[in-house]
Amino acid sequence: SVVGGNASEPPKPKDETPEFMKDALKDLTPRWRNWWIRGWFTILMFGYFALVTYLGTYAFMTSVILFQVKCFHEIITIGHQVYKSYDLPWFRTLSWYFLLCSNYFFYGTIAEYFAAFIQSEDYMMFLARYHRLISFMGYLFGFMMFVLSLVKKRYRLQFFMFGWTHVTLLIIVTQSHLLLQNMLEGLIWLIVPVSMVICNDIMAYMCGFFFGRTPLIKLSPKKTWEGFIGGAFFTIIFGWLISGFLCRFPWMTCPSEISSSFSVNLDCDPLPIFQLTEYQVPLFIRVLLKLVGRSSVMIYPFQLHALPLSIFSSSIAPFGGFFASGFKRAFKIKDFGDTIPGHGGLMDRFDCQYLMATFVNVYLHTFIKLPTPKKLLPLITAMRAPEQVALFHELKDYLANK
Amino acid sequence: SVVGGNASEPPKPKDETPEFMKDALKDLTPRWRNWWIRGWFTILMFGYFALVTYLGTYAFMTSVILFQVKCFHEIITIGHQVYKSYDLPWFRTLSWYFLLCSNYFFYGTIAEYFAAFIQSEDYMMFLARYHRLISFMGYLFGFMMFVLSLVKKRYRLQFFMFGWTHVTLLIIVTQSHLLLQNMLEGLIWLIVPVSMVICNDIMAYMCGFFFGRTPLIKLSPKKTWEGFIGGAFFTIIFGWLISGFLCRFPWMTCPSEISSSFSVNLDCDPLPIFQLTEYQVPLFIRVLLKLVGRSSVMIYPFQLHALPLSIFSSSIAPFGGFFASGFKRAFKIKDFGDTIPGHGGLMDRFDCQYLMATFVNVYLHTFIKLPTPKKLLPLITAMRAPEQVALFHELKDYLANK
Repeated sequence: SVVGGNASEPPKPKDETPEFMKDALKDLTPRWRNWWIRGWFTILMFGYFALVTYLGTYAFMTSVILFQVKCFHEIITIGHQVYKSYDLPWFRTLSWYFLLCSNYFFYGTIAEYFAAFIQSEDYMMFLARYHRLISFMGYLFGFMMFVLSLVKKRYRLQFFMFGWTHVTLLIIVTQSHLLLQNMLEGLIWLIVPVSMVICNDIMAYMCGFFFGRTPLIKLSPKKTWEGFIGGAFFTIIFGWLISGFLCRFPWMTCPSEISSSFSVNLDCDPLPIFQLTEYQVPLFIRVLLKLVGRSSVMIYPFQLHALPLSIFSSSIAPFGGFFASGFKRAFKIKDFGDTIPGHGGLMDRFDCQYLMATFVNVYLHTFIKLPTPKKLLPLITAMRAPEQVALFHELKDYLANK
Repeated sequence: SVVGGNASEPPKPKDETPEFMKDALKDLTPRWRNWWIRGWFTILMFGYFALVTYLGTYAFMTSVILFQVKCFHEIITIGHQVYKSYDLPWFRTLSWYFLLCSNYFFYGTIAEYFAAFIQSEDYMMFLARYHRLISFMGYLFGFMMFVLSLVKKRYRLQFFMFGWTHVTLLIIVTQSHLLLQNMLEGLIWLIVPVSMVICNDIMAYMCGFFFGRTPLIKLSPKKTWEGFIGGAFFTIIFGWLISGFLCRFPWMTCPSEISSSFSVNLDCDPLPIFQLTEYQVPLFIRVLLKLVGRSSVMIYPFQLHALPLSIFSSSIAPFGGFFASGFKRAFKIKDFGDTIPGHGGLMDRFDCQYLMATFVNVYLHTFIKLPTPKKLLPLITAMRAPEQVALFHELKDYLANK
């Protein structure tokens, strides 16, 4: 039952060793064997991250979409297991259908980056022009199917799983698309936050392992204040350094510009925030600088923007992880799945990443991303001719006054 | 339990007679007394709708917000009753807090209409400029409070109520704000769809009462195909007539323009869709028209736009009602509340209105609402000076070519 929480027993611990490793690891104790696997798969994931970074825009895009589908699958599967709802009519089909509709809807939010490609194909123009209507009607079709699939005696379970699907969509699909948006504004807006969260995970674990003694939160008994603070300390330093390093590369800092032939241009005049700038510093630091013969510092303004990001990634983003821990306890599961040997489900690795991506997106919209001529001109050409002329004159007057 | 559905017994039928009517109605049988009350409150609601229409923009805005809060309250209360979760720590406070945050977030979507007012006050400029960041951080605070309020043994119930709150927010808050957006595009975009749904409700009931014999859907055993089809027939005619009538009044068709002193201007050159236009008609109708001495018809193009709206309101919007019926059955309740004597909760009257509002919003965005100079100029002035000049030249070339 939902209240008592005894609808499903926790699954027995499984031997997660992949087939091809079983022979090589047969002499180790289970504890060490698990460490060995966890370590290798950590390295494998780093390799994957490096490869995707090297391959660029499309590799990231494909990964985000694949991970989104897998995370959605993990959470929906938990719902089915906990409530033993495999036999609900239509339910799995409808869940996947809703995933499809909401993805199509959210692609509208990144369509502006594909403007050149979309404008080169008539059917794409149609899908973009009527995108909102098509996704709404598509969703409605699923909604009507849900209503028609309701069967007496299963009503409550069906509504419950409907809610479960929608909360999952809200968490996974929405935030995945914010992550994609960030990436298209420049690979740096994905790579820096993602690696900050990874750094914080690792350093909090290390600091907790060596110095941890004060428990942090009841939900995760193994987490300590020492780990929390140590993680934050190293993440802030790491964020400053990696930002300074990545700012040098235009292919990191330029927005993805996608041509009509689908090729990606990652070249541009870097925005001022990615240009080395001279900063006057407060008096007491200036005194120190004088000692080494300098009166100002040269930094990339992006490094200053990286500070709120690294602070967020080590103070608030972990609550995504606490939330996931609570969720796992509530439904008596150890992990979200067994997708990555030694690590559990994909969702176990992504719990803080999604919250972080949303923060970065909000930050971009608030402080960085301003309208550009390229994005405004299509809006203007969509107006009626007299209004275009009116705008032209208003703009002329405005610029003349300046 | 969520699956078996026996956590709460359906409430006993209550005598819903308001105190001041009890004396006057004491000689009627309960059945007739209920009809009497239902009838009077129907008239009262019509009076309220007429009064709000007369008062205009702010009266509608206040009503939409009040109804939204009440509908949210009704659904959250059902969750608490069904799962006996009154004593969950912090839960009611957090639900209302999330309602506040999501409302603040969605006000961003109507802020453009208040541009003049916002620009006149510094603190409003601040709230608008950082609106996305403030609402996200506000939401995160609630999210963190939720995580910190988790208590062992109640985990599952707490997550369940968290999901319940979020699905309610998704249904009520999102759609209320779409309704507000529609209204600000012109009162006609609220009044026509709302009255179509009311007309369909009443006419489907009447047609079903007099001619109904073929059951329509198991979920609502009293609904018949005769009622469904009759309702659609009358709603389409009603929609055509009321659209033609309301198009004459600029205060119905003009977008609300809100000045810096908060006063509303409902005057404008009507858009072409609200101007009487001559239409050539297909040959077979033209023959009929020739008989009465005419060769074309004069109609408002809006009347043609009203056709998809009336078809939607009588074919797909009722699924909102079926969904609500299913929900009530699933949780074994008769009505969503007892807010309106004789009618049940507010949500019982609004179940189809929300779906309709979303459709109208999508329709407006797809076919009607185009960017205007007034909305684009602030976007342009937010750019950097060289980009403004670049846009100016691009626009100049574009207009010269035309």
